[in-house]
Amino acid sequence: AIAAAAEAILAPVVGPLSGRHVIVTAGPTHEPIDPVRYIANRSSGKQGYAIAAAAAAAGARVTLVSGPVDLAPPVGVTVIEIETARDMLAAVEIALPADVAIFAAAVADWRPVHEAASKIKKDGSGAAPPLAMTENPDILATIAHRSAGRPGLVVGFAAETDDLIANASVKLNKKGCDVIVANDVSAEGGVMGGAENEVALVTSEGIERWPRMPKGEVGRRLVAWIGARLANG
Amino acid sequence: AIAAAAEAILAPVVGPLSGRHVIVTAGPTHEPIDPVRYIANRSSGKQGYAIAAAAAAAGARVTLVSGPVDLAPPVGVTVIEIETARDMLAAVEIALPADVAIFAAAVADWRPVHEAASKIKKDGSGAAPPLAMTENPDILATIAHRSAGRPGLVVGFAAETDDLIANASVKLNKKGCDVIVANDVSAEGGVMGGAENEVALVTSEGIERWPRMPKGEVGRRLVAWIGARLANG
Repeated sequence: AIAAAAEAILAPVVGPLSGRHVIVTAGPTHEPIDPVRYIANRSSGKQGYAIAAAAAAAGARVTLVSGPVDLAPPVGVTVIEIETARDMLAAVEIALPADVAIFAAAVADWRPVHEAASKIKKDGSGAAPPLAMTENPDILATIAHRSAGRPGLVVGFAAETDDLIANASVKLNKKGCDVIVANDVSAEGGVMGGAENEVALVTSEGIERWPRMPKGEVGRRLVAWIGARLANG
Repeated sequence: AIAAAAEAILAPVVGPLSGRHVIVTAGPTHEPIDPVRYIANRSSGKQGYAIAAAAAAAGARVTLVSGPVDLAPPVGVTVIEIETARDMLAAVEIALPADVAIFAAAVADWRPVHEAASKIKKDGSGAAPPLAMTENPDILATIAHRSAGRPGLVVGFAAETDDLIANASVKLNKKGCDVIVANDVSAEGGVMGGAENEVALVTSEGIERWPRMPKGEVGRRLVAWIGARLANG
């Protein structure tokens, strides 16, 4: 009985994503200014972790590339912890090939050009030191535009405060991904850091609005949607 | 027996800081760039929370003004949660008068001049938008230099990566506080975010170096040091 139970735990889950490798990114990235300061995006990582858990429960082998968050690793998921956008891109590229890549992380668009080796001191002038910024690599666009080794299905996220669907549609085309999961992160939307999410799926075929639901349920529905898409593709 | 136990829990702790009000700041501050981005200092808040817990255990009434951290409120401590340096200063001023103020928070020295109301978008140029920064209020200096309502004992912290004691001595004089708890946050020091700390107390009388010890023990020793100082003063 113990052996059978152990086998059940260790045996791969059989489900709609059995035999598939799914990469999920989650959480924020932290871009260092100096040894004690950084720039970050607000992100609890909850939605990405919920998607990774749902993909594993659907039978996928899941690699979760995660920025700094305070969440337990989902059961059966390989978690790779990174800090910066550059490290996140490198970790995703190392994790390839994959059947599906889901970019749920809130990657910082910009980073300081230079990371100071020592803590930057106030100079007594009352003025702040100039903080030269540069664009981070675009992980979603980089992976979606790969000629070799592009995952069969690339899922992007758009967290927007204004013109949600319009911005998501622009992003779908510009990034070269197959679907954008758009969510409203304005204060009025109220989903940031919370337990629920309200998203719309934007593809070249149209827009599918989902009602507000727990992030775990968004994860399961997204994984079911992906499973159906792979079965039809 | 139950009534006696309840009374024991509810009764004020009697100790060296009985009847004293102690304000402690802890954690980082987050300075918003726009609704989804912010600048922050690295700080787990562990040392400040340990000091607040030790002060409460020594009989003090404790007000803990805390930036965003992932720690449980210490037993018997009033926690006021804030996000920015400006909010932290306002919360400290509202909490006055106090016998002792211990500024253990890692306050951001600078903040973006403007917080954008909407998420800042990449403009397609590949260049980053300029991020104009301004100095935050200096909470330690502001409170230590008050003519009316200055706490009897003002404790500052200096987290430095270089020239620890020299920088701490300069800070002691410039900020007008009574003691600086100096700690080395360089990568080699290795205390950042960890469970241990290695500090030196810098006063006008001299330097007292403490060995590396758990942050809880640093809190208890600092509270004992403060109790002795108040008894002698």
